[in-house]
Amino acid sequence: MAASSLKRIDVCLSPELIDLYPLENRTVVVIDILRATSCVTTALAHGVGEIVPVADLEACRGMRSAECCTAGERNGEKVDGFDLGNSPFEYMNPELAGKRIAFTTTNGTRAINKSLSADEIIIGSFLNLHAVVRYLKSGTRDILAVCAGWKGKVNLEDTLFAGALVHELAGDAEPECDAPLMALHLYRQAQHDLAGFLSNSSHVKRLKRLHIEKDIAFCLERGKYDVVPVVRGGVIVKGNLL
Amino acid sequence: MAASSLKRIDVCLSPELIDLYPLENRTVVVIDILRATSCVTTALAHGVGEIVPVADLEACRGMRSAECCTAGERNGEKVDGFDLGNSPFEYMNPELAGKRIAFTTTNGTRAINKSLSADEIIIGSFLNLHAVVRYLKSGTRDILAVCAGWKGKVNLEDTLFAGALVHELAGDAEPECDAPLMALHLYRQAQHDLAGFLSNSSHVKRLKRLHIEKDIAFCLERGKYDVVPVVRGGVIVKGNLL
Repeated sequence: MAASSLKRIDVCLSPELIDLYPLENRTVVVIDILRATSCVTTALAHGVGEIVPVADLEACRGMRSAECCTAGERNGEKVDGFDLGNSPFEYMNPELAGKRIAFTTTNGTRAINKSLSADEIIIGSFLNLHAVVRYLKSGTRDILAVCAGWKGKVNLEDTLFAGALVHELAGDAEPECDAPLMALHLYRQAQHDLAGFLSNSSHVKRLKRLHIEKDIAFCLERGKYDVVPVVRGGVIVKGNLL
Repeated sequence: MAASSLKRIDVCLSPELIDLYPLENRTVVVIDILRATSCVTTALAHGVGEIVPVADLEACRGMRSAECCTAGERNGEKVDGFDLGNSPFEYMNPELAGKRIAFTTTNGTRAINKSLSADEIIIGSFLNLHAVVRYLKSGTRDILAVCAGWKGKVNLEDTLFAGALVHELAGDAEPECDAPLMALHLYRQAQHDLAGFLSNSSHVKRLKRLHIEKDIAFCLERGKYDVVPVVRGGVIVKGNLL
């Protein structure tokens, strides 16, 4: 394939940097591995109807009804009075099938809301890595991976997933700048032992203090689910796969 | 050494993220490998008296006098009418000894100016890596490495130098968050062939188009000069080494 026919892929390592990136004619992949986008992927794979990302905690609380559950976390912990927290295992419950979930998280919701002017937004996690790669390969737009990070700072697990995208899309999308190269180098170093590579990272240490090693191991499984969540009119639904 | 006695080291990958980092009780190391901080290091190593970082091009131009040269670049190229550009080789001229230089660059000056509220600011480059490490080891403050990046985006060469600091300071300063871990992983991958590792990076490609491969090779030499430039009252001078 000639170089000129390649799509381009760039990586925004923190939502704080998003104003530096053009969003027109882009497919944005929002990444919050631990654990927002892993939860969203798991939920839609288990039949949840739609997920509404909400920035404000009290606005989210106010959306609770017979048809709508409330879900989310602050500082890694479930919110008092909410139906669901931020563990992917909570989203496997068959009773949630067809339901609507109002979802607020520290970093993931913020990354989605900052990306809303993009032509298309999809949700990426290791759990749906292969489906996301297939979806991006079938599209024609350039790609921007937006890492949710942690309170504005970069984090290792989101960067690794961005690197996994760059790695898997080699031959289809070309790194546009240094951030995708950094992510790629890190992923290639880490790919055979993601959990080991991440064991010293700040967020993994933070989550281990909350005793959720099981969540971490699950969120690092690659390609478990064949779904691509897409954001349509501000709501996350299951996208169509080829 | 007990963990509690370790200093902390953090890395700010772009000046756009600096508001996320506390600057009190910190020594900030400003990094713009290609080529501002490499030029500053080279200049002071060759006897230049002081360097005044100036954000605005025309303000810099207006400082020209018998005692003060003008220097800097925009988009990697020398500014019309300025005495000096942004190649370290220009700063070896014996005629510059004792002189003052007003210096403006795209990213480096910005990184310095955004760090001014720190307790101490020093200038780092591969050229003075060992002197900077010795200086930081002899101090008691926590450390923040501030990468100048490229127009707000992260770049690989500044991140690698931040990683070199984390690597060399192991046992003396502990990574505080994920950015120093990312930088460390990248440096450990790259350290035996910095030029090869950087050959695909966006800024190296940009500079190669300007035919300055010789500058790049020089800027990647480690520990050539035993000087630590420090910012005092907004002016860069030679710091005292133990």
